[in-house]
Amino acid sequence: VTGKRWTQLRSQSRVVAVVDLNLKGTGQVFFQENSLTGMLFLLGIAYGAVAAKTPQVLVGAVIGLLVSTITAIVLQPDEPSLRKGLYGYNGVLVGAALPTFLGITPMLWFYLVVASAASTVVFMATATVCKTWGVPALTFPFNLVNWIFLMGAFQFTRLRTTDLNPGQFPSQVTGAAAHIDITPGFLVEALLKNIAQVFLINNAITGAIFVVALLVSSVWAGVFALGGSALAIGASLAMGAPVPDILNGLYGFSAVLTAVALGCVFYTPSLRVAVFAVFGVLVTVAIHSMLVSALTPVSLPPGTAPFVFATWLFLLPKKKFDPVQHEYLPNGAAEPGQLMQAKTINSLTPQHQKENQ
Amino acid sequence: VTGKRWTQLRSQSRVVAVVDLNLKGTGQVFFQENSLTGMLFLLGIAYGAVAAKTPQVLVGAVIGLLVSTITAIVLQPDEPSLRKGLYGYNGVLVGAALPTFLGITPMLWFYLVVASAASTVVFMATATVCKTWGVPALTFPFNLVNWIFLMGAFQFTRLRTTDLNPGQFPSQVTGAAAHIDITPGFLVEALLKNIAQVFLINNAITGAIFVVALLVSSVWAGVFALGGSALAIGASLAMGAPVPDILNGLYGFSAVLTAVALGCVFYTPSLRVAVFAVFGVLVTVAIHSMLVSALTPVSLPPGTAPFVFATWLFLLPKKKFDPVQHEYLPNGAAEPGQLMQAKTINSLTPQHQKENQ
Amino acid sequence: VTGKRWTQLRSQSRVVAVVDLNLKGTGQVFFQENSLTGMLFLLGIAYGAVAAKTPQVLVGAVIGLLVSTITAIVLQPDEPSLRKGLYGYNGVLVGAALPTFLGITPMLWFYLVVASAASTVVFMATATVCKTWGVPALTFPFNLVNWIFLMGAFQFTRLRTTDLNPGQFPSQVTGAAAHIDITPGFLVEALLKNIAQVFLINNAITGAIFVVALLVSSVWAGVFALGGSALAIGASLAMGAPVPDILNGLYGFSAVLTAVALGCVFYTPSLRVAVFAVFGVLVTVAIHSMLVSALTPVSLPPGTAPFVFATWLFLLPKKKFDPVQHEYLPNGAAEPGQLMQAKTINSLTPQHQKENQ
Repeated sequence: VTGKRWTQLRSQSRVVAVVDLNLKGTGQVFFQENSLTGMLFLLGIAYGAVAAKTPQVLVGAVIGLLVSTITAIVLQPDEPSLRKGLYGYNGVLVGAALPTFLGITPMLWFYLVVASAASTVVFMATATVCKTWGVPALTFPFNLVNWIFLMGAFQFTRLRTTDLNPGQFPSQVTGAAAHIDITPGFLVEALLKNIAQVFLINNAITGAIFVVALLVSSVWAGVFALGGSALAIGASLAMGAPVPDILNGLYGFSAVLTAVALGCVFYTPSLRVAVFAVFGVLVTVAIHSMLVSALTPVSLPPGTAPFVFATWLFLLPKKKFDPVQHEYLPNGAAEPGQLMQAKTINSLTPQHQKENQ
Repeated sequence: VTGKRWTQLRSQSRVVAVVDLNLKGTGQVFFQENSLTGMLFLLGIAYGAVAAKTPQVLVGAVIGLLVSTITAIVLQPDEPSLRKGLYGYNGVLVGAALPTFLGITPMLWFYLVVASAASTVVFMATATVCKTWGVPALTFPFNLVNWIFLMGAFQFTRLRTTDLNPGQFPSQVTGAAAHIDITPGFLVEALLKNIAQVFLINNAITGAIFVVALLVSSVWAGVFALGGSALAIGASLAMGAPVPDILNGLYGFSAVLTAVALGCVFYTPSLRVAVFAVFGVLVTVAIHSMLVSALTPVSLPPGTAPFVFATWLFLLPKKKFDPVQHEYLPNGAAEPGQLMQAKTINSLTPQHQKENQ
Repeated sequence: VTGKRWTQLRSQSRVVAVVDLNLKGTGQVFFQENSLTGMLFLLGIAYGAVAAKTPQVLVGAVIGLLVSTITAIVLQPDEPSLRKGLYGYNGVLVGAALPTFLGITPMLWFYLVVASAASTVVFMATATVCKTWGVPALTFPFNLVNWIFLMGAFQFTRLRTTDLNPGQFPSQVTGAAAHIDITPGFLVEALLKNIAQVFLINNAITGAIFVVALLVSSVWAGVFALGGSALAIGASLAMGAPVPDILNGLYGFSAVLTAVALGCVFYTPSLRVAVFAVFGVLVTVAIHSMLVSALTPVSLPPGTAPFVFATWLFLLPKKKFDPVQHEYLPNGAAEPGQLMQAKTINSLTPQHQKENQ
């Protein structure tokens, strides 16, 4: 199916148009408005889910994608964003995440539908707030919904949280975790797994499919994804993060998204931008480690929240701005108002008494 | 006292005018600018507090109401909001909550006065921030102040946190909690207790008084309160939430507020709005469960924060909006500035050197 | 070196100009754009760090200051703020904090450089957000970066978190903590230590140097710092906070900053403003206690976050504002859009089909 043929198909059938919308939604997880990229992402998820004997992750991802997109069609937000798939990328992640972390019970699927629909509302809410400062919502909606519904599951007997880590206090990681021999093969696997884990898949082949999916849409996206992945592996190995987690791609998937976002989506590639993205990746690794520690007592995984927070921090600063200075701010509540205090109380006085004054 | 007679009384006496202000403040907990509603709310609180032999809850609520209103009169914010009671509804809740969760010591009352006064400042701060996106402050100020002063109490020997649950890690609720026989009588009680618990009262009669108070002001408010309550009971029973908590109204009081807010206050009632409100109630139940889990390690109750967060998420999305896209954002800090880097360093050079250049 | 002579020196040498920038950055921790104040602050830090045999705190502070300022020069934000030292005051605190709470390992210094550079980006991000409501970023960037990098350290074998308290659930402080005899000498020490602890130094002489540093720049700053310190001691003793912590200045350093900020920086001093600042200090003490409790499970210290949150809450309320009311909000997502639902789905229909209609 060439690009031209696809455009033709899409223009001939409403079904294909809606499928196109959903594929672009999947592609937008990596900021790519590209149906082929989205199709390859779904293929990679399918491969990884089947290989790990967790087909529920694929089923969940597809349900999440459809439900979040349909919710958007019903709520009728701006059509250009709908066409670009912005109302699907959080849903597909919610749909992949809940069956990854929660046990499969009948009620899980109802829960997943509500969560996926909620992801569209949360996206619209987040985008409204973020627009004030000209930054995108990123996957904040996915992360918020994921945390709400994972944590909420503890209170419902018809759901199972048995795959979440039991709560504990944060403790210093010790060198014992580093006794794995790090071979070049392991490093290549980690390089690819970092990319696969963006969709919660722990599989190097899936990662390779994802790289192809990115290259199809944007060479820079592929380059920055691999670069961010390599840098995250280097930085976390150098700092002594737990080696098994590094090799499973857990220390790099947020970094991959930060690298692509800062390196070639929201800025145009240049040496200066690349240095900025390197800095952003290091901060992403730090925020990831922080969230791993901070969420230990409540059994939550950090998801892609490190990417969201780091990318926001690196997009919010503007080239030219004028911060509020350390000096007198007019119009504060502590100042005497235009009405004297007595007058305010007076203003609560009945009208006829005022007239008598 | 008919409405007309009350208006007449209010216009004859400053005391009655201030009392009116405070009653409306109480009514505004349910978004009702209605003195009679507020009076019935206080009556319901009085009944429940006396029945439970916790008169301190009534005393606290009245002190909190007066202190927060007086603080507003001193700070002189916008008078229309003052007259409508917007500076009282957080204070009355702070005043009811602290004596519910903290032991009664002399220092508690000083603490409660500071907290109630703070609730007015926090309301003004929250409203300033929320206005940016055209959403109301809701009871966020109450919840923030409540959490600050409950958690703070652990560090003070002159306060007692003995009624808060000891901290523990979140754990999966098991079916054992569901062995209570759920009779129709229990369900009717829960339906009313959900409404009473908005003011932290665990009493069905109080709930009935509150329903009357709502109907006096707005039939829709009464209908959506009962509808939200019923839906929350149904959803939480279906998911398998702890039955004793459901029957005590703990799984529904935030949902009741969400239903009223979305169903008939900030939207005008219609089928479409009702469906939206149903969705909002389901998300409120999920957020409530999430906060119950997440706050377990720090011994805090979720308060009405689930209502606040869910209602914000459902009010922020706008019919027509244009989110920031996944594309190049101009004017970011990573771009070369108008001044070259060398120039910036140069600009730090003394003036006379520049002149010599 | 008189002020005139300094200005002359600064105008003769680029090195002195950059030193000036860094000294002002240190002074801005207390909102003072004054090189001499900054120099005395560094002197006080040096004295305290050497006296406690922790020279790493001084070294870290200087590195943090330089790195954050250089990062700002590279990113080229607004030059007036750069000249005033606004890009240094968070870095100097990050640099003092990390070696205070983390063990000294070679990797710590690399970690500290990344954190200090990040503090500049976080400052720019925070200032962009805060500007929307006309409030300053305060030391939020320091606190956020501090928390990220302290919590993150748990996950890295090349860092040591052994000086952080082990995680535990919050527990009620008991009277046993109060058995220390409180002598006037202790109180004077606490009065000064409250001020020294702003830079994480537990030393009364350092506090005295800091008071001189403030008086050099602004008499009101010195007065409000001492007043805020005294009030915090009084309030926390009255409430029964742990006496050793009070005497070590831990219950007052945020209060000192709140008092200066509200009393004479962002408002102009008056009786009304002083009363407002007193209220702000009480709320700061409550927020400090709250954060001590809430952060117990994750081993974090509250830093100056209580000052930041309290000061924001007391600066956000405006004299004249018009909050969003409890009434119908137009343009919400739940309303029927201009396009009917069928039309939206229709709009996804291929163009040629539309033409045929």
